[in-house]
Parts: sequence; structure tokens; C-alpha cells
Amino acid sequence: MADDKKLTTRQADFSAWYNELVLRSELADYSPVRGCMVIRPNGYGIWERMQRALDGMFKATGHENAYFPLFIPESFMHKEAEHVEGFAPELAVVTHGGGKELEEPLVVRPTSETIIYSMYAKWVQSYRDLPIRINQWANVVRWEMRTRLFLRTMEFLWQEGHTAHATHDEAEEETRLILGIYREFMEQWMAMPVVTGLKTQSEKFAGALRTYGCEAMMQDNKALQAGTSHNLGQNFAKAFDLKFQGESGAIEHAWNTSWGVSTRLVGGLVMTHGDDNGLRTPPRLAPIEVVVVPIWKSDEERARLLEAAARLRDHLTGWGGRGDDRIRVRIDSREGIKPGAKYYEWELRGVPLRVELGPRDLEKNACVAARRDRREKVTLPLDGLAPAIGALLEDIQVSMLAAARARREANSIREPVTYDRFRELMEGEGAFVYAGWNGDPAVEARVKAETKATIRCLPDTEFRTTPAPQRCMVTGEPAQHEVVWARAY
Amino acid sequence: MADDKKLTTRQADFSAWYNELVLRSELADYSPVRGCMVIRPNGYGIWERMQRALDGMFKATGHENAYFPLFIPESFMHKEAEHVEGFAPELAVVTHGGGKELEEPLVVRPTSETIIYSMYAKWVQSYRDLPIRINQWANVVRWEMRTRLFLRTMEFLWQEGHTAHATHDEAEEETRLILGIYREFMEQWMAMPVVTGLKTQSEKFAGALRTYGCEAMMQDNKALQAGTSHNLGQNFAKAFDLKFQGESGAIEHAWNTSWGVSTRLVGGLVMTHGDDNGLRTPPRLAPIEVVVVPIWKSDEERARLLEAAARLRDHLTGWGGRGDDRIRVRIDSREGIKPGAKYYEWELRGVPLRVELGPRDLEKNACVAARRDRREKVTLPLDGLAPAIGALLEDIQVSMLAAARARREANSIREPVTYDRFRELMEGEGAFVYAGWNGDPAVEARVKAETKATIRCLPDTEFRTTPAPQRCMVTGEPAQHEVVWARAY
Repeated sequence: MADDKKLTTRQADFSAWYNELVLRSELADYSPVRGCMVIRPNGYGIWERMQRALDGMFKATGHENAYFPLFIPESFMHKEAEHVEGFAPELAVVTHGGGKELEEPLVVRPTSETIIYSMYAKWVQSYRDLPIRINQWANVVRWEMRTRLFLRTMEFLWQEGHTAHATHDEAEEETRLILGIYREFMEQWMAMPVVTGLKTQSEKFAGALRTYGCEAMMQDNKALQAGTSHNLGQNFAKAFDLKFQGESGAIEHAWNTSWGVSTRLVGGLVMTHGDDNGLRTPPRLAPIEVVVVPIWKSDEERARLLEAAARLRDHLTGWGGRGDDRIRVRIDSREGIKPGAKYYEWELRGVPLRVELGPRDLEKNACVAARRDRREKVTLPLDGLAPAIGALLEDIQVSMLAAARARREANSIREPVTYDRFRELMEGEGAFVYAGWNGDPAVEARVKAETKATIRCLPDTEFRTTPAPQRCMVTGEPAQHEVVWARAY
Repeated sequence: MADDKKLTTRQADFSAWYNELVLRSELADYSPVRGCMVIRPNGYGIWERMQRALDGMFKATGHENAYFPLFIPESFMHKEAEHVEGFAPELAVVTHGGGKELEEPLVVRPTSETIIYSMYAKWVQSYRDLPIRINQWANVVRWEMRTRLFLRTMEFLWQEGHTAHATHDEAEEETRLILGIYREFMEQWMAMPVVTGLKTQSEKFAGALRTYGCEAMMQDNKALQAGTSHNLGQNFAKAFDLKFQGESGAIEHAWNTSWGVSTRLVGGLVMTHGDDNGLRTPPRLAPIEVVVVPIWKSDEERARLLEAAARLRDHLTGWGGRGDDRIRVRIDSREGIKPGAKYYEWELRGVPLRVELGPRDLEKNACVAARRDRREKVTLPLDGLAPAIGALLEDIQVSMLAAARARREANSIREPVTYDRFRELMEGEGAFVYAGWNGDPAVEARVKAETKATIRCLPDTEFRTTPAPQRCMVTGEPAQHEVVWARAY
């Protein structure tokens, strides 16, 4: 597994720290294909748990899964004008199949609006066929020049939801429902607080009426767009002739939404929670929540400790205090590796709780539990251990969210700042800067050119500053909106 | 949903029956991309349950999931001679990305041996790094000229397991372990009996040492290869320099296995269990096991029946008699559709059990349960209904396997037949013909050319005929092996 060299610290070089952590904790690896990564079992285990949680939330709100083709006829991409403009530079194109040149090239899906709405057009005749609320788990490809493990890869895994409704308002409601699900997932499962809000016209999805997003603050104070939910209006319905006969008998175009989160979330989790010792995984997403490390010196001790460790594991996994969701336990019984090396390795990998079990602990009928988030140890009696471990895990989950939220608030600026001060901040330590904006896209473009910062969103009500900013930070004109500025991944 | 027209019968045209059933029960639909299908929620729900069952079995035997890139450098395909020969005619090739022609074209994976073993070569140094036992759930593309919904599509979904071991015997053990898992899954979950055995050299996987397969008999007496498990020997390890230092210090090549099942299984399920009224789904794989159809005439009755149906659903889903695996229930409360039309529709869709609930049933504190497999009705008291429904579902599962097995046995021929009779059979009603074979690939090729039948496998011990066939069916020479002949999908 990992070598024993220390990670580069976050302070020294955040970007190098991130790459080292991802590689050395074996979350992912570079592949022989430029820009494509391999998601290794440690990373995929986290993604699987993310999938399961989100999938359950989608289904509980009436969505179903389906699967649409990887390939899209090139002509489909051209049917929605903004859409093709947004995606054309990023397409991978299949020109040959079965040894022959194709008559029409096929695009490898960068997103599936076009192919999916062409199918909905076939399935929908009447208002009775609506709504359609389908999600798919799939891979997509976007030809990126500068890639980063998890954060920006040529191929990535995601879910993309696509719905069709009879009215604008129903589509808007769906868009907001999903934004809420994303936020709940990111906060309650990933322990990653987000600011939700509306994207500006220049930052919205290519072809959408409105895009809403979740913005998380990484430990370098840059923003990560962690999930987006689009109200597509009737743009795609018109492009793909997705029409229905309404109750009145009139023929109308349907209203669509689409929404997605991707394996980028794993990168967000690392940059939210990782420390200089490696990954910290929130228990709810950890493939292993508790690693038990038995400690022995002699063969006799070894047999006794392994037996005790197995009993302890069975006790923990048998506990029903969380219902069907049993505590996920692994015993590290490897020989020829010292306990200290094992601790180091499991800390690097981010297992939330380590239980150390040595001969003296056994004599005292106790064990030592070391929580990964705060690196604190506590001695616990073996009798009735499971509820205590369950409570510790729950406390770790809650504490990680609280710590991430406190860090974000400490690095958010809500007092009015001058544009000069803003530029200093963006060049320096970074921040989420809440400020007034005159609503002019030219101002947005200028700030981006001068500072690399963008408007992350027009924050939803509960994230807004009171009293609301009166002046545009850049021009001093009256503010049309409060916005959140930051550099972003 | 579906129109009320009758399906073409299996007797009249098995192939037309299959296509109509798949389309009208909304398992899948044709897409605008030639050869690619859309898996609709009804079909995807079955695939999801297949995935969950298999994934659990893989994990219980120590496998982990990961994800490798969709694209493979074209040069990789050429490193194993048999492999490229087998797959070259079926490749889809990306030649352009991000608006530019690529220096080296990328192949869309038809299977991932090459890219995966190139990564293993990077990860493995010592025998301590072995075994590696990884599975991935992924889409693959094979450029097929003649496609059929689920059975043969250009893109399909599958799982592909890839393992690396220190010895031949360990790899062989893994290959057989997986074959056993596949068989158990197909029989216990799909209620689809299979013959397992070794593939001949001409039917093995391109690049394998040995291929084992599961062969199921469809209702037209043709074989469906439902899953394969390959002992790859050291072929790929040599091609990709996958080496390790053994305990003795010597450098050796690793031994690999690969194995997969795909969405083709959904087609196999349809052709095993479907009847002239539509699909029959084994309960364990049914997204909905029980559909409750309340029957009313007046508004007053409607309110009362809907309430009773909801109580009944809660009673069934609340039952813990199957542990965490709760009965999956749907109430069909749609208005403006007569009960008969609802029955027709749910039969077409293959829901294993329908519960009819009318005012008179309620008065008698009873309901009518109609099982889909035998289309038999039984009246059941509402008190203590859940265990009775649980038992019925279990009986349906077991009966479907027994019925499929009886059908297969009735259409298997174990008595020696002449080659002329064999040709008649293959031209006519079809069969699995157990017969002696002299071991000569030329005989195999001749039979295929003359009858379109192939050797499905050299059956495993428990499927062999006693006494063993003495003579080759075709040449009359002494038999080297007993084989199973059939036409296949």
C-alpha cells in the first residue's frame, strides 16, 4: 500500500496535497488514456455509497431509473442552438464502426438532453402521459484540456435526471425539489455545507432557462460547484417536438428539467475534509466505518487477540441500533506490519474510527477508540460497546459538518468591501464574498478577466445578508441582486 | 401504456412475439441510434434487481468494485494476438476529440482486459499484492450488424470481473467459483436453469486459455449463452507485463480470470418465462411483486376501497417475515380504466401476483389473489394475509424454476441420434442434443455450416449422460467428449 513519506501539507501546496492524497490513499489513479482516471476500490466504495443514498432519495420522491444510449447522432446536438454552442468544443466523436466510416458521426454523450427528449417525444401524446421523471446513472465524456483527478476528467460518472411536465410551474417545482435533495445529501451525508442559489445567465447550463446550483467551499477557500438543477423551459421540447394534448384539447410543448451530480463529489469530499494526515471520510459514506487493530507480541497473544477482535466485530455488526444499517467493520489482522504503520495507513485512507485492542485492554475488558476527525482517543468498556461506537460515529458525522460550516463562515465576507480589497482577497487567501451586483453581464465578465473570480450564485433567501447590500461592489451603482463571488474549480 | 391488441403467439412467430412483448410491456424501446436500445424503467427495474443480487454475491466472496476508462488506446488491442483478431471487426473508434483529430485513435471498450491489466501491472510488484479481485459495472460497445432488443445490441450494460493470481490453480478456482455464482443466480433468482460446462476452443473468449459458460434453453429450444467465466492463463499478463516477485524471489507472470453477464439476461428472462399474455417475472427480480387493484362503482365505494387497499399495502410492506426484504407492493388506483383493462396490463408487464379487492370481498374480509405464472385465482382472508402472500410468492418463484427445468428436460435429447435426425431436429423444433464428439474442430465447423448448430459446451459432470456416449454423432468415431449441441442466440 502507501509508503510512509509524509504528505505535502495543505499550507505548503494545496494542489499537490490533493493529488498526493488521492493517489496515496488509493482513491484513484491516472490511466494510460490522457484525461481519464481509474477509480480504485477505495474511491469507488465512497461513490457507491453516494449513489445508494441519492438513488434512495430520488426514488422516495417518485423518480425511476432507465438507461439511454451512449452515442448521440451528431445532428441532434445541433437542434438546440445554445446547447451545441456550449458543448461542441468538448465533443468526442466516433467516425468509424465495424471497420467502416460512418455516414453520420456519433457523438459520445457529454450529457443526454437531446437523445432523451427525442425519446420522450415518442412516448408522450397526452397530458395523461405526464409527468415523466426519469434518472440515469451513466458515464459521460467531455473533452477537457486541463484535467484533475475527480474534479475534472474527460470521462466521468454521474446521474442525470430528466423530467417532462405539463406546466412551467410544475417544472420549476421539480427543479427546486432536486436542489433541496442535493443540499440535504451534501450536508447530511457528505458533511459538506453548501450555498444554494440561482446561476447568472453567463454561468447557466447551455440550453436552460434557469440553472440552480450548490456551491461548497473547499479548504483553499475556492468554490466547488457540486451539483446543478436546470429548469430547461420549453427549449428542448421545441427542438425535439416534445408535445402533448392538454386537457383542453390544445397541443402544447412540454416543460423539461435536468439535474446532475458526478464523481466530482468525491473530490469535493477530499478537499472539504482531508487533513495533512490524509482523508477524513464522514461515517455515513465510509465503506469501512470502524477498523479494529488487534495488537500482539507472541503467537499465544495473537490467537487470543484475533479471537477477541472477531468477537468485537460480530458484536458491532450485530447491533441493530441503526435498524438495517449495520456498522461496517474491518479487522486488520495482517502480520509483519507494526500497529503504528497500520494506524498511519488507515488514517491516510480516512476510516472514521479506529479501535485498538491489546492484551492489557483485554485484561481490563476495554478498548481504545481513536476518532479520525479530531485524532482523539478514548478508552471504552467492551461491555455495551456497540451503542457507544454508534454514538461516536454519529458525533463524528455531526462534528464534521459543524467544523466545515464554521470554516466556511470564517472565510465568508458579508461586510461591504471595495473592489480593490476584493482583488487582493482573490489573489491571496480567497473567500466567498457576498456583495451587491448591478446585474450587468459586462461587469461579471470584467471581474472574471481581472480576478478569475465568478459569480457563484444569487443566493437563496436563507443565505442572504441582512440588510441587503445596496451598491454594486464594482461600479457603486444601485445593486440589483446580492451575489456570491469566488474563484472556483 | 399498451394497447389492447393481443400479442402474436409464441407458436405463430417466436421472434415477433419476443419483440412485441419487450416493446409493449415497456421493457425497452428502439433508439434513434442504429443498434442501440433504450432500457425503459420497467426493464431497468429488473436489471437493477439483477445487479443488486449479483453484486451482493460478488462482495460476499471478497470482490470489490472499481471503474476503468471507457476508452482504450487502439495499440492496446493489438498486444494480445487472439484478442485483437476476435474484437477488431466489432470496434467503434473515436478519431476526433475537442475539435481535433487524435494522434492515436481511441477504441470504445468492447471489454476491458487490456486497459485493466495494464493498470494491474502498475499496481503489482510482489506476491503480497495478489490476488486482485475487482469487478466493474459498465457499458461496452460491439459493432453488431444484426441486433435484437436485449439479446444483441451495439451498446450493452454488464459487469466484468477481472482478477489476478499468483498461480494457475488459484485462477482456475476463481473461474469455477464465479461460474457457480452465475448458475446460482440464474437458477435461484431468474428461475432459469442452466447447463454449465467448458467451451470448445473455437467458441472460447478471444485470448482465453479456457472459457466456461452457462447455457439456458429458451422456449423455442434454442440456447442462450447467459454468462461466461474465463481462465485467461498468462496470455494478458505476458502482453501487458503483469509480473510479480514470488515468495522464492523469482519474477513470474500473474494468472488472470475475467467473467461477465449483461443486460442480455433480461432477454433470457423474457424468453424463458414469457407467455402469450406477456411477461412473467420471477418474484425475486420483480420491481413490483404484488399489484393491488381496488374495484369500485360509486364514489362512496371508491373512498372505502382505496382506504382498504392502502391498509392492505401497509400490512404487506410492514411484514417482516422475509427480514429486510419487504414485499414490493403497488396500488393501481387509476380512474377511468376498468379493472379488466388493469388486469390485462399488469399481466402483460409480468407482475407475479395481483390482489383484487372489491366491495363484496371487503364484506367477507377477504381478497382474491391471482398468480401470474399459472393464472390461477384463490380467495384469501385479509387477516394474516401477509404470510400467505409471502408463501404464494415463494411458491411462484419455486414453481417457475421447476416449470422451466421440466420444459428444458422435455426438449433435451440424451439417446443417441443419427446425424440425419439431428439435422431434422435443428431445422425443426430444436433441442439440446447430448452426443459424443471426436474432438475435431473440423467436425464442429462442418456441423455449424450445415445446421447452424454449435457445441454449447462440454457439460460439467452433473449434467453428463450415463452411460457416456461412445461414438461421435457425426463421424461414428470413438467419442472424446460428450457435448451439448444446439442452435443459439
